Amino acid sequence: MDFKKRVLIITGNGKGKTTASIGIIIRSLGHKKRVALIKFFKGQKSGEDKILKKLGIEIYKFGQEQFFNPKKIPKTLKRKIQQGWEQTQKLSEQVDLLIMDEVNLALAGDLIKKEEVKNFIKNSKAHLVFTGRFAPLWLKRLADTVSEIKDIKHKYQNGGGPEKGIEW
Amino acid sequence: MDFKKRVLIITGNGKGKTTASIGIIIRSLGHKKRVALIKFFKGQKSGEDKILKKLGIEIYKFGQEQFFNPKKIPKTLKRKIQQGWEQTQKLSEQVDLLIMDEVNLALAGDLIKKEEVKNFIKNSKAHLVFTGRFAPLWLKRLADTVSEIKDIKHKYQNGGGPEKGIEW
Repeated sequence: MDFKKRVLIITGNGKGKTTASIGIIIRSLGHKKRVALIKFFKGQKSGEDKILKKLGIEIYKFGQEQFFNPKKIPKTLKRKIQQGWEQTQKLSEQVDLLIMDEVNLALAGDLIKKEEVKNFIKNSKAHLVFTGRFAPLWLKRLADTVSEIKDIKHKYQNGGGPEKGIEW
Repeated sequence: MDFKKRVLIITGNGKGKTTASIGIIIRSLGHKKRVALIKFFKGQKSGEDKILKKLGIEIYKFGQEQFFNPKKIPKTLKRKIQQGWEQTQKLSEQVDLLIMDEVNLALAGDLIKKEEVKNFIKNSKAHLVFTGRFAPLWLKRLADTVSEIKDIKHKYQNGGGPEKGIEW
């Protein structure tokens, strides 16, 4: 078999996790790969969405626009995460690359069953990218590539707010 | 003035620096910004190039395809870096976002004059993104956002080679 499945994790508290995964999407598109992007937790619009859609990327959102306390995730949101996970498993049979944006938080919070994820990684036919803070250790062990983005300095800390085209 | 110029650095030894900057490009495009991407050192093709060009991004390359020893940079390459730097300064007056891919290596190696870069940062009308390993401390001090991507684990270490759509 020519295909070598890759399992990437992009984690850490720094800026650039989601944008790094968008870059991988664009790179894969350049090689004519089929790509799906599944956004967990986030429901709001982001600058990249329309460009990605124009390029033929399927974007799925399983989140909410409103702020939530990560230590007390609302039931409605938990249900959405579960739906997202079911969609993810279906999509892995249809695409070459699957980006699971912010999914690490769902794994860290046990919103998705660990055993299911392990089986999924084993059986997926697509390259997999897991992004978000708090990637659990068991996931890191299963990945072949783990990048941790550390926040050395961030505008927010200096009183600036999110900037159009940079943060969203 | 409405515009708040941002100065971002994406550095560290991990995977995701260039892809993170591509993601910022796509995000900015979604907000109808003008963007230029200047690649220092790298001359080879990458999967993202044709997609970015299709989207109207100007890509400039000032590098070579062949491998080089970073401790002994060839004169021809040094000249290209200098040309790239001149182009960069011109472009900063024409675009909203300027990505300087791998430029940090040129700054760390004193291939571009520090004082010129300081003036450039002060006077640029565009958002600036500096990527690459070895971002010097003086540059970090001038940036508002610094992300360091740490390589926790990488396929290459495990004997795998670069994968189409993932690494290039």
